[in-house]
Amino acid sequence: MKVLLEKRLSELYPRLVATRRDLHQHPELGFEEVRTSKIIAEWLTDLGLEVRTGIAKTGVVGRLRGAKQGKTVALRADMDALPIQDLKSCEYASKVPGKMHACGHDAHTTIVLGAATLLAELREELTGDVLFIFQPAEEGPGGAAPMIAEGVLEGVDMVFGIHMAPVAPAGIVAVSPGPAMASADEFTLRIKGTGGHAAYPHLALDAIPVAAQVVTALQQIVSRAVDPTQTAVLSIGTIQGGTKANVIADVVEMTGTVRTFDPLLREELPKRIESIASSIAAGFGASCELDYQFKYPVLINHPEATKLMREVAAEQFGAGRVLDAPPQMSGEDFAYFLQQVPGCFTFLGCKHPEPLVDSYNVHHPAFDIDERVLPIGVQLLTAGVLTYLAR
Amino acid sequence: MKVLLEKRLSELYPRLVATRRDLHQHPELGFEEVRTSKIIAEWLTDLGLEVRTGIAKTGVVGRLRGAKQGKTVALRADMDALPIQDLKSCEYASKVPGKMHACGHDAHTTIVLGAATLLAELREELTGDVLFIFQPAEEGPGGAAPMIAEGVLEGVDMVFGIHMAPVAPAGIVAVSPGPAMASADEFTLRIKGTGGHAAYPHLALDAIPVAAQVVTALQQIVSRAVDPTQTAVLSIGTIQGGTKANVIADVVEMTGTVRTFDPLLREELPKRIESIASSIAAGFGASCELDYQFKYPVLINHPEATKLMREVAAEQFGAGRVLDAPPQMSGEDFAYFLQQVPGCFTFLGCKHPEPLVDSYNVHHPAFDIDERVLPIGVQLLTAGVLTYLAR
Amino acid sequence: MKVLLEKRLSELYPRLVATRRDLHQHPELGFEEVRTSKIIAEWLTDLGLEVRTGIAKTGVVGRLRGAKQGKTVALRADMDALPIQDLKSCEYASKVPGKMHACGHDAHTTIVLGAATLLAELREELTGDVLFIFQPAEEGPGGAAPMIAEGVLEGVDMVFGIHMAPVAPAGIVAVSPGPAMASADEFTLRIKGTGGHAAYPHLALDAIPVAAQVVTALQQIVSRAVDPTQTAVLSIGTIQGGTKANVIADVVEMTGTVRTFDPLLREELPKRIESIASSIAAGFGASCELDYQFKYPVLINHPEATKLMREVAAEQFGAGRVLDAPPQMSGEDFAYFLQQVPGCFTFLGCKHPEPLVDSYNVHHPAFDIDERVLPIGVQLLTAGVLTYLAR
Amino acid sequence: MKVLLEKRLSELYPRLVATRRDLHQHPELGFEEVRTSKIIAEWLTDLGLEVRTGIAKTGVVGRLRGAKQGKTVALRADMDALPIQDLKSCEYASKVPGKMHACGHDAHTTIVLGAATLLAELREELTGDVLFIFQPAEEGPGGAAPMIAEGVLEGVDMVFGIHMAPVAPAGIVAVSPGPAMASADEFTLRIKGTGGHAAYPHLALDAIPVAAQVVTALQQIVSRAVDPTQTAVLSIGTIQGGTKANVIADVVEMTGTVRTFDPLLREELPKRIESIASSIAAGFGASCELDYQFKYPVLINHPEATKLMREVAAEQFGAGRVLDAPPQMSGEDFAYFLQQVPGCFTFLGCKHPEPLVDSYNVHHPAFDIDERVLPIGVQLLTAGVLTYLAR
Repeated sequence: MKVLLEKRLSELYPRLVATRRDLHQHPELGFEEVRTSKIIAEWLTDLGLEVRTGIAKTGVVGRLRGAKQGKTVALRADMDALPIQDLKSCEYASKVPGKMHACGHDAHTTIVLGAATLLAELREELTGDVLFIFQPAEEGPGGAAPMIAEGVLEGVDMVFGIHMAPVAPAGIVAVSPGPAMASADEFTLRIKGTGGHAAYPHLALDAIPVAAQVVTALQQIVSRAVDPTQTAVLSIGTIQGGTKANVIADVVEMTGTVRTFDPLLREELPKRIESIASSIAAGFGASCELDYQFKYPVLINHPEATKLMREVAAEQFGAGRVLDAPPQMSGEDFAYFLQQVPGCFTFLGCKHPEPLVDSYNVHHPAFDIDERVLPIGVQLLTAGVLTYLAR
Repeated sequence: MKVLLEKRLSELYPRLVATRRDLHQHPELGFEEVRTSKIIAEWLTDLGLEVRTGIAKTGVVGRLRGAKQGKTVALRADMDALPIQDLKSCEYASKVPGKMHACGHDAHTTIVLGAATLLAELREELTGDVLFIFQPAEEGPGGAAPMIAEGVLEGVDMVFGIHMAPVAPAGIVAVSPGPAMASADEFTLRIKGTGGHAAYPHLALDAIPVAAQVVTALQQIVSRAVDPTQTAVLSIGTIQGGTKANVIADVVEMTGTVRTFDPLLREELPKRIESIASSIAAGFGASCELDYQFKYPVLINHPEATKLMREVAAEQFGAGRVLDAPPQMSGEDFAYFLQQVPGCFTFLGCKHPEPLVDSYNVHHPAFDIDERVLPIGVQLLTAGVLTYLAR
Repeated sequence: MKVLLEKRLSELYPRLVATRRDLHQHPELGFEEVRTSKIIAEWLTDLGLEVRTGIAKTGVVGRLRGAKQGKTVALRADMDALPIQDLKSCEYASKVPGKMHACGHDAHTTIVLGAATLLAELREELTGDVLFIFQPAEEGPGGAAPMIAEGVLEGVDMVFGIHMAPVAPAGIVAVSPGPAMASADEFTLRIKGTGGHAAYPHLALDAIPVAAQVVTALQQIVSRAVDPTQTAVLSIGTIQGGTKANVIADVVEMTGTVRTFDPLLREELPKRIESIASSIAAGFGASCELDYQFKYPVLINHPEATKLMREVAAEQFGAGRVLDAPPQMSGEDFAYFLQQVPGCFTFLGCKHPEPLVDSYNVHHPAFDIDERVLPIGVQLLTAGVLTYLAR
Repeated sequence: MKVLLEKRLSELYPRLVATRRDLHQHPELGFEEVRTSKIIAEWLTDLGLEVRTGIAKTGVVGRLRGAKQGKTVALRADMDALPIQDLKSCEYASKVPGKMHACGHDAHTTIVLGAATLLAELREELTGDVLFIFQPAEEGPGGAAPMIAEGVLEGVDMVFGIHMAPVAPAGIVAVSPGPAMASADEFTLRIKGTGGHAAYPHLALDAIPVAAQVVTALQQIVSRAVDPTQTAVLSIGTIQGGTKANVIADVVEMTGTVRTFDPLLREELPKRIESIASSIAAGFGASCELDYQFKYPVLINHPEATKLMREVAAEQFGAGRVLDAPPQMSGEDFAYFLQQVPGCFTFLGCKHPEPLVDSYNVHHPAFDIDERVLPIGVQLLTAGVLTYLAR
């Protein structure tokens, strides 16, 4: 299988690069992936797949029916770009001011299109179906949940996803079982006092020092209340209060994010935030409002799927190329797929050989990939599907 | 003198009310008092005074030369309005959206014009000169200092000012020697950390919890470092940091005000702010910038001038109408005049008989006065000038 | 009167010095003033006064009945010493290790004994009675309240007290009407969490960082909630929590003191402490106990008594020797007498001409007085009594 | 081997129980293990081993020379008890008031004596030497480092240790490669201000609110500065400052512990504590002293030794009895042995079948073990030694 796939991929390589570069030059934000989904739908239709479009606005799903009946495995790519200005000046840099594929979704889409191409050519050998899921808005507010709500996972037995990892050498495959990417919830916290003239603090209730007490107190959640061997992040990203230097602020508004790998801890953290913030506010006579939004859940790789993907990667590229992936504090809405169906999410090292800046990570305006990893990604997913359906 | 002044003021009363209402309907912000200063200049010219205009942009000064040579005494009024929307619906409510005489400067101007009128009529009896100073921009950034810089106090031996006091019954005269209104300085404090993804706090330097520590630490200046029998206020009016819930803030900017009645303490407070804020920032590896602006100084009434004004008030209105004025935490740029020349600043009770809201103070959108205090103010200042020049 | 008193005092001076030095060498702590009260009772008995002893354990009261009936005026002295080791090596230094008259109560006692001597000699001229009250334990827990409870103030119309002021030049008399010495309340605050192994904070509830939040939050009472033109002190004097570096503290106990000059504010402050401390503790799941003890009240000099004493001092020593006394944050249980009976508490400057250390205040181990102020104190109180009874 | 060992152990079982119970009734604190070491030395001498005593005061080492030359493997037990009062009333409860084997060191000693017994009987089959190391004072201040300094590890190729785990079912073997027990460092932090009367905070420098700021600021080390996927604990175990409610504290002293699994982070944490504490103190004009003591290092199990022990355990007891051990925040001075020599530290489940209280952990006054695990521990270590030397 390895030799066959590599031969076919060397032929396909120019098309993969061209596709990725085309997408890279025309980034589209979440739920606006109109051009991207049109390219995808045409590609899949050309392959003879059953194609559904307009799922969760711009989502696309293609179904490849194998010659023989069997299980159904899904490959998922995300399509959306970020509101970041591209720093690159190369020919394939973003042509859209203020928008950029800075998280590699152009590569993910290209890789899954490549896998669709190879698998379509192998249809006669397939025992089962393959679903190719292209989802919108992974960067938020999330396209996975609405696509699932529209039924894309019905009948699916396993799902695989892949993500570029610019901090790892090109070609490295990193995947681990269990919690792999953190939940990523957000909150808004409002401390309400009473305004007044800054010369007469006793006639007002100054919300700013109350908020300062709340901010320092919230540090104790991570430093004291969370099991030190577990992982939790509570970051207050913004704080805003008051209108003038000589007027006492009546309201301070803060927004923040909470991340963890443990679903139980995830449930507990907002309760602690609420308890600390509202009690401190009340102690000063102020009030407190917490608006807490559970967003992407913890992404938990299933052990069997992870084992399969590691074995496949070792077969295709050698065991030396397969690493454990340390857990990532960033969130990923592929987590929703894994809540429904066994599967795993694999990182593919893609460090650029001549990076624009010394080092960067996803979401950096100098983000770029080593395009030679595109066929590696295709090979991994294709071999994964073939292995799974053959078992 | 008392009978004479009261008789003349009963004739002048309609004009005082009409003038105050005209000014009240046409409020102008600081350094934009074009219409107001034109009315003043014409009035003073009609009285036969030597008039200078355009001092510190819109300031006006009229000189009344007494028949005999002697000392020079100045009366000062402020002219500017505030960027507040008038709540009143009466006929003389502000006609300018978003602007309003909510601090009684229309009354102060009218009272000094009234005093100019009476004193001009008494020119033959005057031993010395009277200066009528109308200053712009008392509400900030301050017209007193630039008018002094242009020489308006040259040759002046004493200066009097007056201010409406809506919390005191109409007709009450309140004045005390020594520190009467606080210094009112302002500062901007910037805490600079390093931004980053909110999921990776260890790769960034979160400015928000550092700022929170600074805010709580600054409370110790008033609670621990200031003599409890002295007075100091340190209010942080605004706090602003960060751009997104899931991005760590690189900068938090705060603005605030500092007030005290003691010039030495006034010098010490910014040093303590600087020491605490910069050390705490440094402790976390962050940096700190303090931009501290000394603004209006402490307003210190001179003992002799205060004594004179209390005696005059007791003579004119009875001793029961004269009270001690408790020190005010608000600032007033008349303080600059008193740094140069002996004098005093007197509060005149002006509580409205039928207030729009139950209780209010200056700068409230329902601010109004009992107009019957206008001739009382004129009588006080006129008698003060006559008494001073006669000594 | 002045000449007569001064003549008699020049005769009495050696005895005053000898008495003060004897008391100074034999200091006794509160409610242990056995030797001191014996000396006093014998002295008063020798003068022919009606003497009661054993009031509030060691208190002594002598009554001098004037030849004619009239009002009753009381002079009060305190007798107790402090648990401080005397630094002095002069002949009259304390002979008792670890105890010392470091607050001048030896002088107060001597002065009132002197006044008793002079007034007894003038009995025939007195219209009314004079009471000489010697109280124990002014330094705490307080002898005034129990003596009042035993009826020492029954029938008393006015009461005077005096206190050494080592920061003022010898012979200066300083007294002002109204609040003169602060209330001095004390509290114990306990934060209760749950202990545990320091390696597992999430299994415990660490009381130390909760207490730290409470301490920083309590600063906001003075910095934000108290009128800046009023005076309040909240000091936490002790903090104690935990038993071992590697065990999480289950309890932190703090003790402190609260001082103010305003009785309403005095009532409000414990409510704010309770609100802030208990809410913050609750926010973390901890509990809080506040044990608040109202101790010495605000000492408020009555206007008429103060006026009398100022007039008497000016007559006896010249107006230039009489000053306003700035309010003192320290407490004094003479305040209880003034809650029952009009009167005033006067400070007498007593700066030593050759102090052991450059500058000191009461309670300093180098405390000493210029003994030449002893007859001045006697003269002041004697003349005060004579003047009051003569009116 | 398995059958042979089990047969021999069923004979030895009564002696193991008797020995453990004897030690349990006669607990000795660190460096006072005189009786214990005497029992050990006699036992080893009786087996014909070369015995050294008095190493690091009370340490004992026995050397068993195998018939053939080969590698040297060491087994280590700790001997000391804890200053805890035994809650048990059974016949083998502690006979020494206030002292107790609450951490299972009596069992560890018994197990290693048992292994010595079996291995001595197998001397003819041994290729290499076995060292039996009995160390004092594991509970602190540590007997491992001084024993190593006296050369006990010279020529040793591998070392094994074992620890009772009362939270795991009896007979479970739990061991993982890599960091297994945290470093456990301790510090003393002194904040020095200036004392004074609590009524005059501006004349003093109150160390208590400065210390409170430091305590809250130190929370940010774990909450913000440590990689969320790493583990660190910073606990302040004690705080102590001030002497009286109405005296301002000049010094606050805190003690605490710091724990982590990462040696680099371990080096960084005291620098952050120093930076934060000293800067905050300096900001208020106070000073700060940090006395930081690096104590037990991170215990890091070597991969090969861990693999061997897991294989041995699976062979002897079945794979179902072998678990991963989650990392422990508590420290263990066996870590010093592992810094010198490859090896591993294994936990042996010992949950009592009828516990005195529902659940407890080590250091609990109701601690007890299921004694049937004693031969399991002997079997594990004996088989480990045999396997290692046979390779």
